[in-house]
Amino acid sequence: VSLGEFALIERFFAAPARAQRVRADVALGIGDDAAVLAVPPGRQLVAALDTLVEGRHFLRGFPAASIGHRALAANLSDLAAMGAEPAWYLLALTLPAVDSDFLEQFAGGMLALAAEHGVALVGGDTTGGPLTISVQALGLVETGTALRRDGGRAGDLLYVSGTPGDAAAGLQLAMAEREAASLDAAHRDWLLRRFHYPQPRVALGRALRGIASACIDVSDGLAADAGKLATASGCGVHINIESLPLSTALLAQAGAAGAARQALGGGEDYELCFTVPAALETQLTAAVAQLQLPVTRIGQLVAGAGVTVLHAGRQVEFDSRGFDHFAAS
Amino acid sequence: VSLGEFALIERFFAAPARAQRVRADVALGIGDDAAVLAVPPGRQLVAALDTLVEGRHFLRGFPAASIGHRALAANLSDLAAMGAEPAWYLLALTLPAVDSDFLEQFAGGMLALAAEHGVALVGGDTTGGPLTISVQALGLVETGTALRRDGGRAGDLLYVSGTPGDAAAGLQLAMAEREAASLDAAHRDWLLRRFHYPQPRVALGRALRGIASACIDVSDGLAADAGKLATASGCGVHINIESLPLSTALLAQAGAAGAARQALGGGEDYELCFTVPAALETQLTAAVAQLQLPVTRIGQLVAGAGVTVLHAGRQVEFDSRGFDHFAAS
Repeated sequence: VSLGEFALIERFFAAPARAQRVRADVALGIGDDAAVLAVPPGRQLVAALDTLVEGRHFLRGFPAASIGHRALAANLSDLAAMGAEPAWYLLALTLPAVDSDFLEQFAGGMLALAAEHGVALVGGDTTGGPLTISVQALGLVETGTALRRDGGRAGDLLYVSGTPGDAAAGLQLAMAEREAASLDAAHRDWLLRRFHYPQPRVALGRALRGIASACIDVSDGLAADAGKLATASGCGVHINIESLPLSTALLAQAGAAGAARQALGGGEDYELCFTVPAALETQLTAAVAQLQLPVTRIGQLVAGAGVTVLHAGRQVEFDSRGFDHFAAS
Repeated sequence: VSLGEFALIERFFAAPARAQRVRADVALGIGDDAAVLAVPPGRQLVAALDTLVEGRHFLRGFPAASIGHRALAANLSDLAAMGAEPAWYLLALTLPAVDSDFLEQFAGGMLALAAEHGVALVGGDTTGGPLTISVQALGLVETGTALRRDGGRAGDLLYVSGTPGDAAAGLQLAMAEREAASLDAAHRDWLLRRFHYPQPRVALGRALRGIASACIDVSDGLAADAGKLATASGCGVHINIESLPLSTALLAQAGAAGAARQALGGGEDYELCFTVPAALETQLTAAVAQLQLPVTRIGQLVAGAGVTVLHAGRQVEFDSRGFDHFAAS
C-alpha cells in the first residue's frame, strides 16, 4: 500500500484539527519536518509516549472511535499522573491498509478527546504495516511541582480515584468472553464505556499538586501500580479490600469477590492512584470537592516492601502481577 | 510474550543511557509516568516523531545496530532540517519476542548515535507485537529561528548536502537485489554504510539558521523532497542533473545515468535540501566552510509549480513520485 501520507494526514487529522482549535503556542504545526512549540517561562515540559497494538491493547472489531480515544487517553493519563496540563500531541500511525471508514472514526474519537482537553495535534507519521498507534503527548507543569512516583513515605495514606475494575470487566464484555445473563443494559453500557472511553484524570492530577506525595496512573492494575509507586518510594503498601470503591455495575457483573479481584488486578482503568501525608487529608478533601470525581482512601504506605492485601485486617492471597493485556502468561 | 517492560528497558536502555551521559536539563527521566524536562528561556521546543516498521523500512536480517541507529537518525534528521539542537528522545518499541542479542545491538546502535549528539533517552514504552519502532525526538531552537519548508522564494538557489543516492544504492546491496560484479569492497562498504548508518546533518542545520530561506531533509528522495519544499514555498523547482553531487561509489555501482536516477529518486539519504537567497551565497560558503560536509548548488526555485529536471538546460523526463520504501506501487 502506498499511503499518500500527506493527503491522509491532511484529510482525517490536520483539517479537522485546524477546524477544531488553534493554540497560540503552536508556532508551526503539522506539515513540516517537525513542530515548533512555545513553552512559557516558569513551566517544565512533560513528555509521555504510549503505544497501542492490535491484538494486545485492542482487538479487530472494537470501535475505531474507541481505539483513537484510548491511544490518546493513555498518554493524557500519563500527563495527569504528573500533575501536568496537556498541550500538544503527535501521532505515529501504522496501518495495514487505508480504510476511510476506520480512519474517519478513529480520528473522530481521538480529536473529540483532544478537544475536550484543549490539546493540539502538531505532527505525525503514517506507515504501512500491522495496525500500531504510538502517541506522544507533551504537557506543561509549573516548575518543580510535577507529581512523581518516588515521593511517598511510610504512613502516607493511599487513595484511588473513580471505580477501578470497571475497564477490565468492560473488556470481558467487549470480547464476549463472559457475561452475566442477568446483567442489565445500563450496567453493561457503563462497563463497556469505562473500557472503550476511559477519561484521563487531568483535573484531578492538577488538583493534587502540592498535596499528593506520589502519584501513578492505573494502567496495569491497581495492586501492581500501587506496588510500583511503593517500590519507587522505598516503601511497602497495604491495601484494604473492604475499602475498594466498586461500581454497582461491576458488582452486578462479577459479584463481591470477583469485583474486588477485578479492581485489584484489572488494568486500563486510567484512574489515579496516589499517596497523601496524613496531615494533608483535609486539604485533599477540599481540593477534590468540586471535581465530581470520588477519591477513596484504600490503604497506606508502610515500612518494608511489597504489596499486602488485607481483608478485615488479615492478609489475603493476591497475585499482583497485574494486568498484562492479552498476554498468554 | 510478557515483556517485563521495566527490566527490559532498564537493562538494555536506561542503565547504559545513564552510564553514558546525564543532561542537567532532565529533571525526571526514565521510570515515571512521563519525563520532566527544562526548556531554557529564549528557546522554542521542536518535536518530531518517526516510525520504522519491519518489511517497510528494514528487512529481517539487517544489522540490529543499524535499525537502532536509523530509528533515531530519522528523527534527528527532522530536527536538523529545522535548525534545532537535539536534546531528548523517547522510544516506543514493539517486539515480537525478547531477543537479548537483538536488543543489545539495537540499543547499542541507538545509544551510540545519541551519545554523538548529546541527546538523552528520557522515556519509553515496550509492547509485544510486530517489530515497530517509534522514536519521538525533542530539540531546542532559538526562538523565531527555526528553518521551515515554506520560506523559499522564486530565484532562491537550491542546495543539497553530501552525495544523495548512496543510501538507495546501499539498500539494493543490503537486499542483495543487484550488485555490480566489479564493485570493489571500499565502494560496497561506503554504500552499505550510507544506508545502514546515515548521519543526521545537525551541525549543518544549525549553521543554516539565518541563511537558508527553506529546508527539508531528504527521506523520500531528492526530487520529491525538493518538490515538497517548493510547493510549501509556493514555487516550482528546477534541478540540473549535471550538478548533482554523485559519489564515486555510486557511479561505480550504477553508472552515470543510473547514479543520477538514484540521486533524484532514492530515499533515506537524510541529507539536507535547502534554498538560499542569491544575496546570501557568500555567507553560506563561509558558514559551511568548517563543517567537513560538501553542499552543492543543484538548481533553483522558480515561479510556477512542480519539479523540472534539466540536462544541459533541456527538460528531461523524471518520475518524481519519490522513494516509497518497500511499497509495491
